[in-house]
Amino acid sequence: MLVVMKNDATQSQVKAVIQEIERMGYRGVPMPGAQRTAICIVGNTGPVDDSGLLVLEGVKETVRVTKQYKLVSRETHPQPTTITVGDIKIGEGKPVIMAGPCAVESEEQALTIARLVKKSGAKVFRGGAFKPRTSPYSFQGLGEEGLKILAKVRDETGLLIVTEATDNSSLELVDRYADIIQIGARNMHNYSLLRQAGHASKPVLLKRSFAATIEEWLMSAEYISSEGNSQVILCERGIRTFSDNTRNTLDLSAIPSVKQVSHLPIIVDPSHAAGRRDYVIPLSKGLSLSAPTACWSRCTTTPPTPSPTGCSPSTPSSLTN
Amino acid sequence: MLVVMKNDATQSQVKAVIQEIERMGYRGVPMPGAQRTAICIVGNTGPVDDSGLLVLEGVKETVRVTKQYKLVSRETHPQPTTITVGDIKIGEGKPVIMAGPCAVESEEQALTIARLVKKSGAKVFRGGAFKPRTSPYSFQGLGEEGLKILAKVRDETGLLIVTEATDNSSLELVDRYADIIQIGARNMHNYSLLRQAGHASKPVLLKRSFAATIEEWLMSAEYISSEGNSQVILCERGIRTFSDNTRNTLDLSAIPSVKQVSHLPIIVDPSHAAGRRDYVIPLSKGLSLSAPTACWSRCTTTPPTPSPTGCSPSTPSSLTN
Amino acid sequence: MLVVMKNDATQSQVKAVIQEIERMGYRGVPMPGAQRTAICIVGNTGPVDDSGLLVLEGVKETVRVTKQYKLVSRETHPQPTTITVGDIKIGEGKPVIMAGPCAVESEEQALTIARLVKKSGAKVFRGGAFKPRTSPYSFQGLGEEGLKILAKVRDETGLLIVTEATDNSSLELVDRYADIIQIGARNMHNYSLLRQAGHASKPVLLKRSFAATIEEWLMSAEYISSEGNSQVILCERGIRTFSDNTRNTLDLSAIPSVKQVSHLPIIVDPSHAAGRRDYVIPLSKGLSLSAPTACWSRCTTTPPTPSPTGCSPSTPSSLTN
Amino acid sequence: MLVVMKNDATQSQVKAVIQEIERMGYRGVPMPGAQRTAICIVGNTGPVDDSGLLVLEGVKETVRVTKQYKLVSRETHPQPTTITVGDIKIGEGKPVIMAGPCAVESEEQALTIARLVKKSGAKVFRGGAFKPRTSPYSFQGLGEEGLKILAKVRDETGLLIVTEATDNSSLELVDRYADIIQIGARNMHNYSLLRQAGHASKPVLLKRSFAATIEEWLMSAEYISSEGNSQVILCERGIRTFSDNTRNTLDLSAIPSVKQVSHLPIIVDPSHAAGRRDYVIPLSKGLSLSAPTACWSRCTTTPPTPSPTGCSPSTPSSLTN
Repeated sequence: MLVVMKNDATQSQVKAVIQEIERMGYRGVPMPGAQRTAICIVGNTGPVDDSGLLVLEGVKETVRVTKQYKLVSRETHPQPTTITVGDIKIGEGKPVIMAGPCAVESEEQALTIARLVKKSGAKVFRGGAFKPRTSPYSFQGLGEEGLKILAKVRDETGLLIVTEATDNSSLELVDRYADIIQIGARNMHNYSLLRQAGHASKPVLLKRSFAATIEEWLMSAEYISSEGNSQVILCERGIRTFSDNTRNTLDLSAIPSVKQVSHLPIIVDPSHAAGRRDYVIPLSKGLSLSAPTACWSRCTTTPPTPSPTGCSPSTPSSLTN
Repeated sequence: MLVVMKNDATQSQVKAVIQEIERMGYRGVPMPGAQRTAICIVGNTGPVDDSGLLVLEGVKETVRVTKQYKLVSRETHPQPTTITVGDIKIGEGKPVIMAGPCAVESEEQALTIARLVKKSGAKVFRGGAFKPRTSPYSFQGLGEEGLKILAKVRDETGLLIVTEATDNSSLELVDRYADIIQIGARNMHNYSLLRQAGHASKPVLLKRSFAATIEEWLMSAEYISSEGNSQVILCERGIRTFSDNTRNTLDLSAIPSVKQVSHLPIIVDPSHAAGRRDYVIPLSKGLSLSAPTACWSRCTTTPPTPSPTGCSPSTPSSLTN
Repeated sequence: MLVVMKNDATQSQVKAVIQEIERMGYRGVPMPGAQRTAICIVGNTGPVDDSGLLVLEGVKETVRVTKQYKLVSRETHPQPTTITVGDIKIGEGKPVIMAGPCAVESEEQALTIARLVKKSGAKVFRGGAFKPRTSPYSFQGLGEEGLKILAKVRDETGLLIVTEATDNSSLELVDRYADIIQIGARNMHNYSLLRQAGHASKPVLLKRSFAATIEEWLMSAEYISSEGNSQVILCERGIRTFSDNTRNTLDLSAIPSVKQVSHLPIIVDPSHAAGRRDYVIPLSKGLSLSAPTACWSRCTTTPPTPSPTGCSPSTPSSLTN
Repeated sequence: MLVVMKNDATQSQVKAVIQEIERMGYRGVPMPGAQRTAICIVGNTGPVDDSGLLVLEGVKETVRVTKQYKLVSRETHPQPTTITVGDIKIGEGKPVIMAGPCAVESEEQALTIARLVKKSGAKVFRGGAFKPRTSPYSFQGLGEEGLKILAKVRDETGLLIVTEATDNSSLELVDRYADIIQIGARNMHNYSLLRQAGHASKPVLLKRSFAATIEEWLMSAEYISSEGNSQVILCERGIRTFSDNTRNTLDLSAIPSVKQVSHLPIIVDPSHAAGRRDYVIPLSKGLSLSAPTACWSRCTTTPPTPSPTGCSPSTPSSLTN
């Protein structure tokens, strides 16, 4: 349920409503808007009796929220959310390119690619310092060393940094070094990590699990928001289907689907979806011109140099935008 | 295997090669190109001994075809195929819009919609006279009566006509009345119908079955081509996945996948994939600007009028472009 | 809607009800039961006004049918259907084994395998005379010649024969030679063929398409039943999923799902689902002891002999039970 | 690569081989067998030069391991692994039933159900103290309080306890109280948690993610094994497909697939796969008699009592075996 305050409601009236909500056994999350504040009631499992709320000073009306997710729903926040990171705005309609290598391997590799992607128009540099690998024997990333390299890339190029956190300890470090914290597809159901990301100081880029419905994805975003971090960017990266012509099947319709029910910005990762360098341009051409608010891509230097990460351009997972 | 003839090879030399191929127990299909003719050997299950062919007059070389599909493969026909229907060219790079109602219901309904879609820029009118319905009790289309209405729509508006054939007898009729014969997704594996379409006089629009791999789809196109009708247009219309936010999941990556291995033109049907009127524009925006060579959509009159087809705008399967 | 007649209703009363249903613009299909007859109304698209029926002589009550499929629904026929073919009963609870090669290749091959499968306890011999092949260049079956071999197998071994019909002309032949007509997974949506099978004289074994929901499968069975042939046996053979450890994923839960909503017998084909000879026994062990009423398997002679069909034991699609 | 020691190799020879492996930059994991020890080399990304190993005292031969997973592969451990927990053996061929409620709600609820499931023949009691919920607002389990109740259930009934750990802190607690640590499907890709489970003192029951291939699942088991805990039990619980008749599609063929390539025991959870109480018995009948080594089910008291967990028998996720 959403408690909508009058335009001229005071801060102390908002506070009184939140206290009453807590007295009822729930939690009240204020959602300030351009004109007025609304307070979202979370924590109820059934219908809420609003009689004690409607009589409070400054309350205009109450609105039932029909979805299981509340804070990320358009019902509680009809206007699309814009997330400001450095000097860029994600969700404002202008595509933002995020690009970079699969993993950070060395300062030289990172800087070389970063200069290339900057020249191509990217505003955000991506590159993994902590890599969630299918095999325990694969290169797991440079760790904090990689984060320091990323920070250096930002200093030298002005590009903003997005990089993945894979558990509680890496999240703390990523929050310190990066501009955007990535939660990967494999951790979309890792609720413990999502909760911790809800306490982070940076925006969170939440990738869709390759088998998650839109509803499940938004519930994972709700985990982050419900802990206090409302700066969530969704990222569609392809789903797992019978189709074997690409590694994943990019679910383009996720974009209008999400936009219809949520106010969060959504971006697209065509390189993960395709798993092939030569499909990124056809896929991106359509995508970046249409619905999503950002486009995300792995990049590598050309010509390829041997790399310990398995992400050199000779492997199908590496792509040049 | 492909037998490539010299630039100055004569018709009788081509004929001699075909006769030798037949003597070997296979079939030779001539594929004339801008510069020279190649002859595709079909019907072999294993490697072909080309020693008897290389010695023939006019033969330049032989090329092994690695795919199971041959005539529709880029290996045998490196240049993209353009299909000319009336005054339009499908596959030339300029998007062609095909639009119209699910089913033809009456002359008035068809003409009203046809005038609307023409005004919107469509060149081809679609509408079903024979409808493959999940339920035996649903309206199955007006049959030949519907085809006569479609012919009238062409006469009055100048739009070209594409409509579905569902079995051998309807295919004969559709071939007579329409400009393009549609084979629907549910009949993509109906090899008997595909073979017959290979003898039709009109181009065939072959929809991808909702569970077909790219390979299986091209093999179905090969069925049509191998019977003599090389005018095949592929149409991606969404695949069946776990994802429940849309009726089907549009597999955008099918477009570069097909283009890479086949010379056939490919178009996209975002309305079937989405199953929702309000998703067609976001999906089409991206699509029509990028890879496919045509865009296909169901349209209906506004405001909706009661209809016996279950395809009125109030149902999710009806869409206005 | 189902019109339930009184226990002592006469044939002329049943006839009068059917006439009244026809007068209302629908069709009435009598469904005789052990105690009394019910008449299923088909052809209505919305609710039926039963006031004119309830007043007729011999009518006990009317019952609304909630599913789109009617004749194959448990609502109209609560008792499970048993189908008698020769001296076997399919659907009675005792497993019936159907086994044989992918394709009939020669009299010797067919007889050799038939004797083996008979010794193993099979009651029905399967083998294709008409093969629906992904490639137009693959062996398409021996045609009527194959059917004659199958008839000879029956004469010599006493095994009953099930074989596939792929289009209208082969269906006519299969109906003449075989004991059970198979409609394959790829033709489950071929409504023209299903309708014709509804006029055949033999029971129809209807395989589930690899991407069909239970609802769609039952609607295809309804196509056959609504044309007059109520002898339909369903066959689960695996669905297409992301999982790549087997060719298809056997959907074991389809058995209780179908049994709950339909009275038709259901059998299982573990060999197609697995696509691997060594998985058939583990899969069958569980299956044949539990829910399905029959088990279906491809068999081949051992040791394998070269075959033109691509179904010799060296290929993954061939299995010895 | 596997270094196979001679039957009479001494401990110090084994140690010398491990030291040489470490000197080469890899890690050597000894795998003692009935007759002799083998040492698995992990950490290599390419082929290993075995010339320095073959010359060492006590080395019989080296064997290349072709799979990415090594310790859990049949190649390195041809005999099936049996895991002993209390007085039961998992993987010995005799089915072991594990049953209990979705979540532990109270001592009374847990004990009531535990007595029921014990009477039905179950040896292991399941019930969640830490629940990974799609919604942040759902009941998240009683936490350590729930673990204490489970310990009491063991004391009173003699049933062994399996319960889920969802993050590092709950894993520590579960390791202390339970007999088997469950890693749920949503955490199958949570490599940080898997690594920690590799240091736990109790066997780990690793559920297959609903979108994981067999290869990915075994790689997750390898994460646990490679940290030192070789006591891993795999649990198939249904995959996500287009099929909507059950919540998930039980992938029965995963059992022979896993058994073929891995020595780990595998059990089946038909209740999660079906999501319907009435399907568990048909599914289990087949399953428990055939391949898997254990069967897992949710149970609830009858008649249902209101519960805060959303797992009362009135919801589709609750099942009585």
